[in-house]
Amino acid sequence: MQDFRFQSPTTIIFGKNTQCDVGQETKKYGKKVLLHYGKGHIKKTGLYQQVVDSLKEAGIDFVELGGVCPNPRLSLVREGIELCRRQGVDFILAVGGGSAIDSAKAIAIGVPYDGDVWDFYSGKEYPKKTLPVGVVLTIPATGSEASNSSVITNEENKTKRGIVNNFLRPVFAIMNPELTITLPPYQTACGAADIMAHVMERYFTRVQNVELTDRLCESTLKTLINNTPVVLSRPDDYNARAEIMWAGTLAHNDVLSTGRISDWASHWIEHELSAINDVAHGAGLAIIFPAWMKYVYRHDVTRFVQFAVRVWNVEQAFNDPEKTARDGIDSLEVFFRSIGLPTRLYEIDITKNDFDRIVENCMRYDDNTVGQFVKLSDEDIYHILKLAE
Amino acid sequence: MQDFRFQSPTTIIFGKNTQCDVGQETKKYGKKVLLHYGKGHIKKTGLYQQVVDSLKEAGIDFVELGGVCPNPRLSLVREGIELCRRQGVDFILAVGGGSAIDSAKAIAIGVPYDGDVWDFYSGKEYPKKTLPVGVVLTIPATGSEASNSSVITNEENKTKRGIVNNFLRPVFAIMNPELTITLPPYQTACGAADIMAHVMERYFTRVQNVELTDRLCESTLKTLINNTPVVLSRPDDYNARAEIMWAGTLAHNDVLSTGRISDWASHWIEHELSAINDVAHGAGLAIIFPAWMKYVYRHDVTRFVQFAVRVWNVEQAFNDPEKTARDGIDSLEVFFRSIGLPTRLYEIDITKNDFDRIVENCMRYDDNTVGQFVKLSDEDIYHILKLAE
Repeated sequence: MQDFRFQSPTTIIFGKNTQCDVGQETKKYGKKVLLHYGKGHIKKTGLYQQVVDSLKEAGIDFVELGGVCPNPRLSLVREGIELCRRQGVDFILAVGGGSAIDSAKAIAIGVPYDGDVWDFYSGKEYPKKTLPVGVVLTIPATGSEASNSSVITNEENKTKRGIVNNFLRPVFAIMNPELTITLPPYQTACGAADIMAHVMERYFTRVQNVELTDRLCESTLKTLINNTPVVLSRPDDYNARAEIMWAGTLAHNDVLSTGRISDWASHWIEHELSAINDVAHGAGLAIIFPAWMKYVYRHDVTRFVQFAVRVWNVEQAFNDPEKTARDGIDSLEVFFRSIGLPTRLYEIDITKNDFDRIVENCMRYDDNTVGQFVKLSDEDIYHILKLAE
Repeated sequence: MQDFRFQSPTTIIFGKNTQCDVGQETKKYGKKVLLHYGKGHIKKTGLYQQVVDSLKEAGIDFVELGGVCPNPRLSLVREGIELCRRQGVDFILAVGGGSAIDSAKAIAIGVPYDGDVWDFYSGKEYPKKTLPVGVVLTIPATGSEASNSSVITNEENKTKRGIVNNFLRPVFAIMNPELTITLPPYQTACGAADIMAHVMERYFTRVQNVELTDRLCESTLKTLINNTPVVLSRPDDYNARAEIMWAGTLAHNDVLSTGRISDWASHWIEHELSAINDVAHGAGLAIIFPAWMKYVYRHDVTRFVQFAVRVWNVEQAFNDPEKTARDGIDSLEVFFRSIGLPTRLYEIDITKNDFDRIVENCMRYDDNTVGQFVKLSDEDIYHILKLAE
């Protein structure tokens, strides 16, 4: 086990009608709020009005900025920062999924910073201050409601970049599974794939003797594997929605990475897919993760055997560990397909012609390798894309 | 799944030599520290000197109060409160196991309170303020390093009482598994039983549809079942010590009780055993928990079948669920015995003559029932004691 430092202070307020407590919760942290949300779906469902009523009831003054889209844009973040400065906003409330939250986090670190907020995402600067961020979550997927990360797309140069910093964790996350019942099947499945990917990025480590967190990861994956088909066939199953929603938070608040070195290669590669064609993050991950596995599993067959047996109940071929490992990877791919996700690049209109650009974008940072389980070179990434073709 | 509110903000600093960071961590919260510890074991191991050096290096002024014993005493808590007031202490640093931490928490809520600190434990008052508490953990067992609870024994009336309040959570917990390598086998085993009991109190719930937390509980139990025998045969196995230590925190920081109603009957009954004869808490639990299970399992056989199959790998007798359930309970009892713990009351010199008093003490509070899985009456508790005889 590796040494670690862990803190996840976000207050989770989980259950029915919890969105109606947002005013009281917000009041503890701020006086003037930016209400930040997406394309107006929350107005159709009535959530917007509930949030506004709760804020007003608590006597909280607010301004609003909607329009966050999937793969949230730098331009809107900059607009939000200007708005907050002009209006003296001291608290950002994100109502929505990971895009609204990541955008809110970017605004929150941008407001007290003199330079351009992209400096943080390009790696030029580390954020040193933030406004507090609160969340009313509507989509279980990114885990951003309690995570220390934010991912923003710079539409000028088609680059998607994430940052990690412990004070990017929201101060509270209001999570009502009822709000996820209206999520369309494809978005539900993409969310599940994203959550599973967050667990698997942590699960596939070369650090030995991490039994507790291995098992916690396996538990989370099994819960998702069991409950995702349930909500696809019975969208209004509250309990299954609740399992997925809570799994989404625990998958990415870092308790599952304690004592381990996580991988993140699949996320890096996927970011470049969705920067190119705006594919949903979960769908991109459903394509890249199995391909990554097929490419790297021989580096630690034992870990992939454990994944196959414990997570997928694959019958172990004791005399052929590689077969067992491959059966586990196949099970994952079959599962993704069964919940309606693509598992090949052609399904999202990415062809061999895009590969060089994707590889090049992946390689822009750090030491010219991607990932930790295996440090992938540009050539490795090309081969992974070929496997996903 | 039940609605819930969850926050566990304690910063965990986990790994080798982390005790040498205690000065820097303490400095973030306090200027004048009470260094609170047990019977001087930490002086023999050199830990005391490392902590003192680190505090001095960080320029922190401190006073000290040793002498905490297992089942920490109200009289020492009162002494600590007086000392802190006299010396203007603004931070309590516990160095030790759960007793030192629980005693530190009691002092921390007692200092800013005008009345007698026992008011909180007797249920007369709720604490409304606390000094911050930091921890250097030496015994993985109570989970007090990140929990919201504190248990104190009033030696005047031989009563052991716990309180629960979210600001009893320490601000940091320094956890170096190396510090646990010198723990004697019996204490190691008692710690493991205590941790398992914390998980099982949460696991045995009547709330349905709690799959994720069920699985997380099972993961934690399996990790303890695998690693406790390892450290008993190889006390210096760092990784196995680390698994147990981290399991001890996660077992009791409440992530495993999210969405569930926990039981706690076994803990209540055990408190009365150790109030009578000072038995180690974990040993008392190893006696009471299997007896409690034998008495209540018919109220939800399915849950006990799941416990048997998933935690203990019992081969399921599909046509005889009660047999499977009992096999699981037997596995637990055999396990406790295999790690050197008592599983019968006579082993700790408690006889039928003590039963009435134990039952009476258990019944002193609330609505004259104990526990949630089954609400036990005085008669029920008597029967459980009989099963443990």
